[in-house]
Amino acid sequence: MDSGEQDAITDVPGVSVGHATLIQGTGKLVPGHGPVRTGVTVILPHDKNVYEEKLRAAVHVQNGAGELTGALQVMEWGLLETPIALTNTLNVGLVHDAIVDYMLNQNPSIVDRDEVILPVVGECDDRYLNDIRGRHVKREHVFEAIKAAGRRVTEGSVGAGTGMSALGFKAGIGTASRKTTGDFVLGALVVANFGGDRDLCVDGVPLGRKLQRDNDSPGDDGSIITVIATNAPLTSSQLRRVAARVPLALGKVGSISSNSSGDISIAFSTVGRVSVSSASAITSTEITSAKTLNELFRATVEATEEAILNSIFASDTMKGRDDNVSRGLPIDETLEIMRRQGRM
Amino acid sequence: MDSGEQDAITDVPGVSVGHATLIQGTGKLVPGHGPVRTGVTVILPHDKNVYEEKLRAAVHVQNGAGELTGALQVMEWGLLETPIALTNTLNVGLVHDAIVDYMLNQNPSIVDRDEVILPVVGECDDRYLNDIRGRHVKREHVFEAIKAAGRRVTEGSVGAGTGMSALGFKAGIGTASRKTTGDFVLGALVVANFGGDRDLCVDGVPLGRKLQRDNDSPGDDGSIITVIATNAPLTSSQLRRVAARVPLALGKVGSISSNSSGDISIAFSTVGRVSVSSASAITSTEITSAKTLNELFRATVEATEEAILNSIFASDTMKGRDDNVSRGLPIDETLEIMRRQGRM
Amino acid sequence: MDSGEQDAITDVPGVSVGHATLIQGTGKLVPGHGPVRTGVTVILPHDKNVYEEKLRAAVHVQNGAGELTGALQVMEWGLLETPIALTNTLNVGLVHDAIVDYMLNQNPSIVDRDEVILPVVGECDDRYLNDIRGRHVKREHVFEAIKAAGRRVTEGSVGAGTGMSALGFKAGIGTASRKTTGDFVLGALVVANFGGDRDLCVDGVPLGRKLQRDNDSPGDDGSIITVIATNAPLTSSQLRRVAARVPLALGKVGSISSNSSGDISIAFSTVGRVSVSSASAITSTEITSAKTLNELFRATVEATEEAILNSIFASDTMKGRDDNVSRGLPIDETLEIMRRQGRM
Amino acid sequence: MDSGEQDAITDVPGVSVGHATLIQGTGKLVPGHGPVRTGVTVILPHDKNVYEEKLRAAVHVQNGAGELTGALQVMEWGLLETPIALTNTLNVGLVHDAIVDYMLNQNPSIVDRDEVILPVVGECDDRYLNDIRGRHVKREHVFEAIKAAGRRVTEGSVGAGTGMSALGFKAGIGTASRKTTGDFVLGALVVANFGGDRDLCVDGVPLGRKLQRDNDSPGDDGSIITVIATNAPLTSSQLRRVAARVPLALGKVGSISSNSSGDISIAFSTVGRVSVSSASAITSTEITSAKTLNELFRATVEATEEAILNSIFASDTMKGRDDNVSRGLPIDETLEIMRRQGRM
Repeated sequence: MDSGEQDAITDVPGVSVGHATLIQGTGKLVPGHGPVRTGVTVILPHDKNVYEEKLRAAVHVQNGAGELTGALQVMEWGLLETPIALTNTLNVGLVHDAIVDYMLNQNPSIVDRDEVILPVVGECDDRYLNDIRGRHVKREHVFEAIKAAGRRVTEGSVGAGTGMSALGFKAGIGTASRKTTGDFVLGALVVANFGGDRDLCVDGVPLGRKLQRDNDSPGDDGSIITVIATNAPLTSSQLRRVAARVPLALGKVGSISSNSSGDISIAFSTVGRVSVSSASAITSTEITSAKTLNELFRATVEATEEAILNSIFASDTMKGRDDNVSRGLPIDETLEIMRRQGRM
Repeated sequence: MDSGEQDAITDVPGVSVGHATLIQGTGKLVPGHGPVRTGVTVILPHDKNVYEEKLRAAVHVQNGAGELTGALQVMEWGLLETPIALTNTLNVGLVHDAIVDYMLNQNPSIVDRDEVILPVVGECDDRYLNDIRGRHVKREHVFEAIKAAGRRVTEGSVGAGTGMSALGFKAGIGTASRKTTGDFVLGALVVANFGGDRDLCVDGVPLGRKLQRDNDSPGDDGSIITVIATNAPLTSSQLRRVAARVPLALGKVGSISSNSSGDISIAFSTVGRVSVSSASAITSTEITSAKTLNELFRATVEATEEAILNSIFASDTMKGRDDNVSRGLPIDETLEIMRRQGRM
Repeated sequence: MDSGEQDAITDVPGVSVGHATLIQGTGKLVPGHGPVRTGVTVILPHDKNVYEEKLRAAVHVQNGAGELTGALQVMEWGLLETPIALTNTLNVGLVHDAIVDYMLNQNPSIVDRDEVILPVVGECDDRYLNDIRGRHVKREHVFEAIKAAGRRVTEGSVGAGTGMSALGFKAGIGTASRKTTGDFVLGALVVANFGGDRDLCVDGVPLGRKLQRDNDSPGDDGSIITVIATNAPLTSSQLRRVAARVPLALGKVGSISSNSSGDISIAFSTVGRVSVSSASAITSTEITSAKTLNELFRATVEATEEAILNSIFASDTMKGRDDNVSRGLPIDETLEIMRRQGRM
Repeated sequence: MDSGEQDAITDVPGVSVGHATLIQGTGKLVPGHGPVRTGVTVILPHDKNVYEEKLRAAVHVQNGAGELTGALQVMEWGLLETPIALTNTLNVGLVHDAIVDYMLNQNPSIVDRDEVILPVVGECDDRYLNDIRGRHVKREHVFEAIKAAGRRVTEGSVGAGTGMSALGFKAGIGTASRKTTGDFVLGALVVANFGGDRDLCVDGVPLGRKLQRDNDSPGDDGSIITVIATNAPLTSSQLRRVAARVPLALGKVGSISSNSSGDISIAFSTVGRVSVSSASAITSTEITSAKTLNELFRATVEATEEAILNSIFASDTMKGRDDNVSRGLPIDETLEIMRRQGRM
């Protein structure tokens, strides 16, 4: 399938992405002081007020050894009411609180209208490079990421992806998109921090077993949070099915969804919004064609696979706390192997 | 079935409960300043280090319009690794962060051991009486609640229950317990903040329709978080089934599990602990008797129903922000009606 | 809330219900020969071809110790494509096969159109009175029940309910309905075969503990299948939430959802049909009002509670295999107790 | 990882597999008469009476557009009590009834002991080659498959796999196994009938896009039922996690888990059996090591991927009803492409 114009989740009209990247200090870990290799990424699902114009959404949990706050409400109501924030594991609380701030500022009347705010915050564990105990992502970084949100998505070691590694290599944020024949676009964004040391497969080629490696390794205990956006008018049930196709892509790049890998996906549609000022019922269009659904399923698998690989290809070697090193994928060697496998 | 000695969740050996209660100011709401009617309640599942000796646990979601952070991990692993904290909706982030603090202090080596902390924090919405926007529960209140934890559980308008109302009356924290023939004890603790104005049933008597009412009303949009503890050696699958009996008690007291009521339950067993220093396998005892399971199911329904009623019976009328009033159940009138219904 | 005209699931326009009741022989059980106390009940969800005009539907499993074939597909697609058949546990296979026959006859082109048939067949265990090993429900009884389907629903010991007992008394089929302010109607039909011997509550009165009893008892190991129909235009996600309110009614009548009680519910809407000849998308109306949803949730709890009680009130004492007796509720004594409790 | 001795699910001690294969007639479809290209496969999970010695088990549903009867009970109790039978979609009812027969014969006292039988029967749709309307699998074929069960598993177009196709080629039954360092063995058996015409990937090589094709095609609307067996002492929660790794293998071979593909998995452990004559509790060993779990997850992905490929490699071109042709994978051409891709 063809990619969208930017080959990014932001090809879905209205979606924007912003990062705040925190890189500071080197050398020995002093908890609370650094070195800092972390950040926060915010996905704004459309360019209006998300609370006022809620989106249909769903969550799929392939392996729940992670956190996505707000997931229970998204599952129950099938609606997304807040931006989606991604950060490091121990910063979930502070980022959660910052999103509450942001929502209250943007919607001063929420509390009076008898409504609550349950932010959607996902996490991966960047302790291998980052002073995760320090919880260096503060309120202002969340606001900074929101302010920075735009259509152009930087990939690799930025935002929530700053300190992450996947499948034995430096990774982080990756994104990709696909267009369907029905003129829909579907995009994926991942924060990739999962996978075994020698398991990387690129377009089916078992690179992880072929590349020369040194001994440093970020381990295989991470997670992956996947965000899927589309402008196809899907119901929340259908979005759940879309999110449930993410594991197929995980398999393709080499994941076994290991014990402590929080493999959690959230999908939303930018059309068919539910306004808080809606009358008691709305009229909506619903896709009933299996062919269209299957194209969206295929788009999900392809875009997620590519987003993961992009997160690796876009990341350079990084040295972090205690001089731990997460090695960037050796691009030349990779291309040479791919060529020998007849892939280029 | 008979109650335990204290008729409280703390009848399960090792379980302790602590509150921090915040009541300050009167009159007109000034967001950030008050009036304050809120707090935090912490359940310590046993008297050892919970991270070092994890407990089997499970979550059941009757209606997911609420938050219980950490739920996805509990569901996946069937283990509880942190205390359980309950607070108001908008304080989830700060309480989450405080629990991370507590866990890091108690377990300095967590991060080095390649482990993460995903605290379990539940919430209800106390905005009717409380300046919820102010997020008045701070780090020190969480520590205070943990420090205060003991076997004696105060009920009603305390801790997380301070500003809550249920079924048209002032409510808050309630607890109860039951003993099985196998000498197991099962306890329930609720923070009750749910239910329709005229729906209260006490031991089957539709009191809500019979009691005189004035016009003030906390509304029916709240939630209920239920914590079930037992010393029966249940597997996480069995604990899921125990937690799934909570809705039966909700029905009995008059709930319809309304659209925005986050009706979420977590159950844990204090025996069959999984130590982080476990060898690669442990030996455990597993109940296989349907009779024993049914007794535990019955204990769950009875203890939860009583805990909810206790949360109401133990709460006096409270005036909060903007002089909103949540009326305490009129005990004399209630008893008179119960007597006329042949219940006493 | 008010009942519909017939106080039956058939108050939902288009829904019809038919029974085939098999009662034959007395005395000692001779497997394969009798005595026979069983049957089959079929719910036709509308008066057109259900395969051609599929309905939105959902399944909720409170306790999965039972069978509802087709449930996985209903959960996945949110669609109901076949009638719903209820029968005894060991007859599921033959009734399943008979529904396949019926569907193929009605839709000769299903197989050519690349479609399959996964019938929805639920069961309870009537072995206490019936020669269940004999699998006496044959193809022709299924066709007979379909042919008999109409708006008038006989309750009690008929169809699938013939040999069933609940909460210590003879029970079987029960039905009830409620109307919402939005002019929607919601109906429930149960085959009730669950619940402890002394647990019956009628409108909150613990009758089971008050009524004189003899020693015969059908045991407490049964199940309950609940069918909810409505003409409110609910999505499958919303229907799942409706079906999830059934446990609240189970709690009210005295259930603890015991270990081997298959407490399974299926809900469908008769409007917003999906035609196999649909273009690739359809336009539908979706309820977004919490008030309307809450009315439908309340209707579900009320109608299900009443349907269960109706199944008991409509059933007389029955003697079955090996002269086992399931005693009918003593109506006079019941009414006297209710009167003394101020309920009449 | 290394394969077991037979590279089959029967490498798990005690597991046996039997087929009954029905191939009859050629040419034009006459419903009820043929041509017949179908069958039934039975997995006996151990060599004792399964009802007397129940096994821990779990079900995972990647896409529920299919049937696995008994799944709700396996999910609820975490126990497998019957053999697992696989057949064509419209034969589920008759095979279900035959398994009831088998169980009653083997366990004459089931009904008297207050127990029920809910057989586990899975299906795929073989209509492309088979007169599926004819429901040619009869009671005697089920008994024949049970009788034929042994350690040697024939693969390809046999048993339930007789008329199946996958990823554009003739497929059917496939099996494989892996050994872990802890001396556990895990085996997979699939009935493969899913996947898009050009999507086949073999060890990462996109063969489906490279192989010459003619126009005949079995379509992409099928399903895959996967059975996982292991002698690792897993709890039902852990077995659910094992079954949830099957989608990773589906992704690797090229599946997008299309709309009407019933992708359903069941996993069981042959150790830690629950005897019906158990006292009220049993003692069991439980794996707590993430390393061991991860090995079992990897074994699941590897064995399932290989089982699917084996089902294709073992199947020759078959002509069925109306002279429909499902083409066998051209082995020489395949090996040549694999060689050019540096895979051999």
